Amino acid sequence: MGSQTTIPKGTRDFGPVEMSRRNLIFDTIRSVFRLYGYRQIETPAMENLSTLLGKYGEEGDRLLFRVLNSGDFMKQTGEIPLHTISSQELAPLISEKGLRYDLTVPFARFVVQHRNEITFPFRRFQIQPVWRADKPQKGRYREFYQCDADVIGSDSLFNEYELIKIIDEVFSRLGISSETRINNRKILSGIASVIGEEERITDITIAIDKIDKIGAEAVKKELLERGVSADAVSKLEPILSLSGDNGDKLSELESLLQESPAGLKGIAEMREIFSYLENSPVKSSVVVDLTLARGLNYYTGAIIEVKAEGVSIGSICGGGRYDDLAGIFGLPGVSGVGISFGADRIYDVMSALALFTDDIDVTSRVMLVNFGGEEEKYAISLLEKIRAAGIPAEIYPGSVKIKKQMAFANSVSVPWVIMAGEEERVTGMVTLKNMVTGEQEKLSASDVISRLADA
Amino acid sequence: MGSQTTIPKGTRDFGPVEMSRRNLIFDTIRSVFRLYGYRQIETPAMENLSTLLGKYGEEGDRLLFRVLNSGDFMKQTGEIPLHTISSQELAPLISEKGLRYDLTVPFARFVVQHRNEITFPFRRFQIQPVWRADKPQKGRYREFYQCDADVIGSDSLFNEYELIKIIDEVFSRLGISSETRINNRKILSGIASVIGEEERITDITIAIDKIDKIGAEAVKKELLERGVSADAVSKLEPILSLSGDNGDKLSELESLLQESPAGLKGIAEMREIFSYLENSPVKSSVVVDLTLARGLNYYTGAIIEVKAEGVSIGSICGGGRYDDLAGIFGLPGVSGVGISFGADRIYDVMSALALFTDDIDVTSRVMLVNFGGEEEKYAISLLEKIRAAGIPAEIYPGSVKIKKQMAFANSVSVPWVIMAGEEERVTGMVTLKNMVTGEQEKLSASDVISRLADA
Repeated sequence: MGSQTTIPKGTRDFGPVEMSRRNLIFDTIRSVFRLYGYRQIETPAMENLSTLLGKYGEEGDRLLFRVLNSGDFMKQTGEIPLHTISSQELAPLISEKGLRYDLTVPFARFVVQHRNEITFPFRRFQIQPVWRADKPQKGRYREFYQCDADVIGSDSLFNEYELIKIIDEVFSRLGISSETRINNRKILSGIASVIGEEERITDITIAIDKIDKIGAEAVKKELLERGVSADAVSKLEPILSLSGDNGDKLSELESLLQESPAGLKGIAEMREIFSYLENSPVKSSVVVDLTLARGLNYYTGAIIEVKAEGVSIGSICGGGRYDDLAGIFGLPGVSGVGISFGADRIYDVMSALALFTDDIDVTSRVMLVNFGGEEEKYAISLLEKIRAAGIPAEIYPGSVKIKKQMAFANSVSVPWVIMAGEEERVTGMVTLKNMVTGEQEKLSASDVISRLADA
Repeated sequence: MGSQTTIPKGTRDFGPVEMSRRNLIFDTIRSVFRLYGYRQIETPAMENLSTLLGKYGEEGDRLLFRVLNSGDFMKQTGEIPLHTISSQELAPLISEKGLRYDLTVPFARFVVQHRNEITFPFRRFQIQPVWRADKPQKGRYREFYQCDADVIGSDSLFNEYELIKIIDEVFSRLGISSETRINNRKILSGIASVIGEEERITDITIAIDKIDKIGAEAVKKELLERGVSADAVSKLEPILSLSGDNGDKLSELESLLQESPAGLKGIAEMREIFSYLENSPVKSSVVVDLTLARGLNYYTGAIIEVKAEGVSIGSICGGGRYDDLAGIFGLPGVSGVGISFGADRIYDVMSALALFTDDIDVTSRVMLVNFGGEEEKYAISLLEKIRAAGIPAEIYPGSVKIKKQMAFANSVSVPWVIMAGEEERVTGMVTLKNMVTGEQEKLSASDVISRLADA
């Protein structure tokens, strides 16, 4: 059957069991976003390439899926001798649209485009798939969902605190023990400044970010190779080996960063967030982590990353504050802060920790056996009553052999089966079978409904 | 700001108000599908072009959005002198994937690809966007959602009946008065056969399908122009002018189609569906409509179309039985029947009929004014209690001027505002303001929660 019945690599089909588990994740995130007053938006799958290009770095540009112009796209290439042209040169002539790469750039575009309809501060959430032409590998897909919440137009640190509350609430509802790590871009700048390597902040943070993976010694080696002075590296050491609780770390850091106003500002911001958390604590742990250096090309304040405890899968949520995202689209000076949940990673964590229970509804709660004729009519009238009570239910379509119907009920894991043959119809009763225990009992129609509703 | 802050033509952004209305439609359709025992799947936005091409006719092939191969896509064009090549010839060399054009072909592909994991009859539903490079116009978009339910692997007409029940239930929950029209491909074949024009069934049905739009006289003229004999056209007349209720129409038709076994089979199928509906009636009207001739290139039995009463917007739901859809992917002889709700059309109908009420939750139910300092702490502790009761709530981020906070609450249409200043904090009370009536009252924290929960 060949490529006609396969799907593009890096993409996935989701069957009913996966869908019910994925919906559990999406529904939980959506409910918590709503509970916290975030308002949903959606943007198109395709954006103009002029919106997307140059926003994700060279690597990002390369990973965009481009959509071929419709109609006679070669007409637009004009007189150019195509046999001499490269892919890179031809692409802009035959493609003007690309698939959404993340939800942040479309959101910035949305805010600028609709700025006159929006009341700021604008708290929005958005749950949609994104596409990246990344090399597919375990846990990395070319189509995956992001679940983002951002507040734009408010520089209050209350927002950072509430986003941490949201993270805590989502993972606690899903049964995941999470650890939220928090850093601040201003602190990283302060560190680069006090060790005398202000210009090399990117090199330094890229190296620091690897401490978890490769260890402190390897990081030091890498810093020296990248041209950071031996003096700076030795000054960096005590900073990276800060210990104690969050308060201890921040106090020690404060004395080390005395000479950096930016660094001190970062510490003050962190303290304000922790003071909100002291007043209204979360269930999971929130820790200062100076090695956290994600998204440095846009984050300007808080940097947030969340890991699941008990499983070694990368970050399951991340975010931070950006002071000028909409500026790239001509609306400068609007501060924002946001987080993004990675639904696919969360799915993998929940699978690894066996957090998906069997009681997630995949299918009907009950299947009625179809005996045909008058019995079918009797069963249909009962079926209507069961559904009117809000209980998902089905009858086997057609009166095939009972054995086949029972095999079907078994294979789709429906927990209950109702049999209403001639005897039951005449007496106004039904037989209810528990498909897990195999037990059967005779009940009246109304009793069977309350039994199913309670189950 | 140019094309950077616009979106591709034919696509749309959805803001919070539109999203809450759209969610009402999607949530309703999803709940009813689930209630009837349909199980959800999702397929990737991109399919291999070999899956999509040739499945929607020439017109459909032209309307597919093609995705440019990633990386150096020109490498694959080899030695071909590109300056002589047409768009049509080049496209397959530089693009292997396309965006989903509907949910039916991906579902057929899904069924064949996963046939060993699926228990038949398989009732699936799927709610996802599709993309078509159609000329954008009022009510027609390049990105829109389809909401499909299909049963595959059962030829019982019970399924047709249940799909009609689903249609009825969805539109009744949404407050739309609907009329479901039903026809049968076998009856159309029978008609073509008894008027002696079996070969011209497509011409005949295409013309008949226009009766609603252009009238019977114009249809007759068109049939003659298409080469249908005058004799056949005159034989067709009584069939098209059948009147009376569904039973009358089917009886008259039965005598007219005596010579066509296919036609009689179609009538018997219709009667069986109506006999289910007599036993278990629906609230909306279901009418036999012989002019209904959609989807003739794949429907083999029932053809279904639904219109909203009181508004002249096209079909809001359609479907039918196809006997061999999976056959195109090498799994022949599996019969299916399905329907597809057009969420965007339904949205337009509900807007036109003013069916969206103000009580659809767009935002928080209550906003707490932020007075800063100790009052902010007091407000946050109250906010936590309100959210713990499941009520979406927010506090203004930062203690800006009260006037600005109230203007914000007003512009996002939050129905209630809580003010808890120093006096309230000291006495353990809050002031609750109804933003619609302007009324204010002082309540205790626990009373305010029960008031908000009841509202």
